[in-house]
Formats: sequence, structure tokens, C-alpha cells
Amino acid sequence: MGVSGPIEKLMKLFAKFPGVGDKTARRFALFLLQQPKCFTEDLTSTISLMRDLTFSCSICGNLTTENPCPICSDPFRDRKTLCVIENVEDMLSLEQACIFSGLYFILGGKVSPLDGEDIDPERFSRLRKYSEEGEFQELIIATNPSIEGDLTFYAVLDALKPVGTRITRLAFGLPLGGSIGYADRVTLHASLESRVEVRIPEKK
Amino acid sequence: MGVSGPIEKLMKLFAKFPGVGDKTARRFALFLLQQPKCFTEDLTSTISLMRDLTFSCSICGNLTTENPCPICSDPFRDRKTLCVIENVEDMLSLEQACIFSGLYFILGGKVSPLDGEDIDPERFSRLRKYSEEGEFQELIIATNPSIEGDLTFYAVLDALKPVGTRITRLAFGLPLGGSIGYADRVTLHASLESRVEVRIPEKK
Repeated sequence: MGVSGPIEKLMKLFAKFPGVGDKTARRFALFLLQQPKCFTEDLTSTISLMRDLTFSCSICGNLTTENPCPICSDPFRDRKTLCVIENVEDMLSLEQACIFSGLYFILGGKVSPLDGEDIDPERFSRLRKYSEEGEFQELIIATNPSIEGDLTFYAVLDALKPVGTRITRLAFGLPLGGSIGYADRVTLHASLESRVEVRIPEKK
Repeated sequence: MGVSGPIEKLMKLFAKFPGVGDKTARRFALFLLQQPKCFTEDLTSTISLMRDLTFSCSICGNLTTENPCPICSDPFRDRKTLCVIENVEDMLSLEQACIFSGLYFILGGKVSPLDGEDIDPERFSRLRKYSEEGEFQELIIATNPSIEGDLTFYAVLDALKPVGTRITRLAFGLPLGGSIGYADRVTLHASLESRVEVRIPEKK
């Protein structure tokens, strides 16, 4: 409406992106028209290249252009800790926070009966094999703080129990920088349930 | 970090899009990896096509693949009203609202001394020529409700005054669906200043 052919088509394609509505899609299309041509050329070739070269790491399931992926092949990572995580996006969040130096195993899905989603059983047998063959001393199950995350947690726990390695889980509670006044009921409940002992320093 | 080459590069490119931060850029890249290949092929070819085929309409300045653009060449549009507007995005907003059936003239910029932005004087001479040669009975100056919009308004007004045609401006006031309690001071002031007479229906 108002503009012709390819612009309108591009708006429709952008509107399919996650979290992008009609107005943002329009903004993106007009933004691309204002950029130097080298920018759009770079963009289209990078998209094609990414699609052609990217595949899943045969060890952890991370998206990569080399096998094993840069994380699995990094000699400086802590090979004693494995973090089991739902998807690549969650893994990247942890990576960008620079707070974890162990290895990952990506489930590639979650248990969500309402959406008809489930985790490929093959991933579970791979996970068990990996955790048995590796020299892990701790397996961290990093599922999301949600009902689906809980279901996923118990499914992973079932698969990992026989391995006999120590299993941990991410802590749930008040988000840092948040406030008790604005926290929702479930978060408040979780932070109360998981309250931690305060150690009083001894007098000298 | 964590993913290799082209994915990371694409994230950086997406992060240059307006309103897109690092996390959204990451989501976009991973979204594209999950789509069928035909989607990304369609996307890249549409971007290239749009860049190659799109230019500015010689009459109004709209982005188009044919000259004059679909709006200027539409025989059903009201040729007696011209709407002068800052940019294509604003024009598309009006078009998508389906509330205006006249013609447009796109300034292609705004007067913004603080950002060092100004409108090409050539656009003003074109606008004056267009409004003199057309059979317009009303010229609507549709600039944004901001300081830059005001400056732009007066610049356009200066250019259009000699034409002698009736000039109007969009109304400013409380946005529909908003509330007085949450309105900002400037908006409240505008809506008070521009208050309209209430006509009391006569008793029969």
C-alpha cells in the first residue's frame, strides 16, 4: 500500500521475524534503502553464507562452521563441568556473560506437552553417552524458570541419574536489580523456598 | 563468541538495524537458521531486488519501482489536496490508516539544527513549483509534533505562502485512547490551547 513490489514484499518477510510487527518491518525495509549498497550486499551474502556453512556440532549441538565447534575444541575450557541447556540462544546468553568456562550440551528443544513439543530421544541417549564417556565431575542442568523448563529438567534428570555424576541446577529467586515490591508471586515463593543461610562472622 | 564466523557477522549487521540491540540481533540470526532455506533465499533476493529497482518518484519523492509512483499515477486520488510530509515512513503510516486520499509531497528530511540536518533547498523549489502548477485547493503540512517538526513546519510555510492556496496543519492534542492523567505537560497544553467549541444541539 503506497509503495510498490519488492519493498512491500520485504516488509512482509521482515514481519515474520520474531517480535517484529508491521511498523518495525517497514522501518527495517526503509532503513535498508537508506544504507550504502555495500551494506545490503554484505547482509545478503552473509545470510547466504551462514545458511550454507552452518551445521550442528557433532559433540554438543552448537551451531558452527567447523566440527567440533570452537567451544568443544577449545583446550582452555574446563572439561570437568558440563552444562545441559535447551537451545543455542540460551547458551549464547551464558557465553556472552563470560561466567561459565565449562562445556555445553544443547538439547535442541524442550518438553512442552501443550505445544506438542518434545526432545528428540536420540539427544538423550547422546547426552548420556557423552556424560558417561567424559570426565565430568558436575552436570549442570540449566533449564528455564518455567513450567516447560521444569518438565525439561525432570526429563534430563531421568536421563542423567544413572550416570552417577553430581548433578546441579541453576538457582531461582529474585533477579538482581529487581525489587521485592515488583516481583511476581512465583518468583517470591521461589526466593523464599531457596533462602540461604547467613553466616555471621565470628568475633575476634 | 561461542558461535563462529558468519553467524557472528550477521548478528553485528542486524545490530545496526534501527531499534535492534545485541540480543534481538542474535534472535534474528538464529531465527534465520531455523527457517527453511527458501525463506532466506527469498529474503536475500528481495533485498537485492529492492535495492536495484527502487528509486524516488520524480513528482512526490515516494520510493517506487515505476515513475510516477502508484499514488501519483492513481486516477482515483483526490488531486485537490496535497499533503506535505517529512519522509516515506510518515507517508506509509497515513496510507496504512486509509484516512487520506489526496496526493503527497515528501520533503525527504527535517529542519534540525542540533543534528545539523536540513531540507535540500531544491525540494522547496520543487514543492513550490508543484503546488503552483497543480490544481490544489488545500495544502496540508503534516510535520511531527516536536521541535524539529515545528521548525520544519515554518520552513515549509515560508515556501508555500506565496502560492496563495489554503494551508492547514495536523491537529495536536490528546491521543485517542490515552488519558489525561498520563498525558505529558506539552500535550496537555496543546490540547487546551487548541480546544474546540462544543455545539449544543437546539431544542426542537
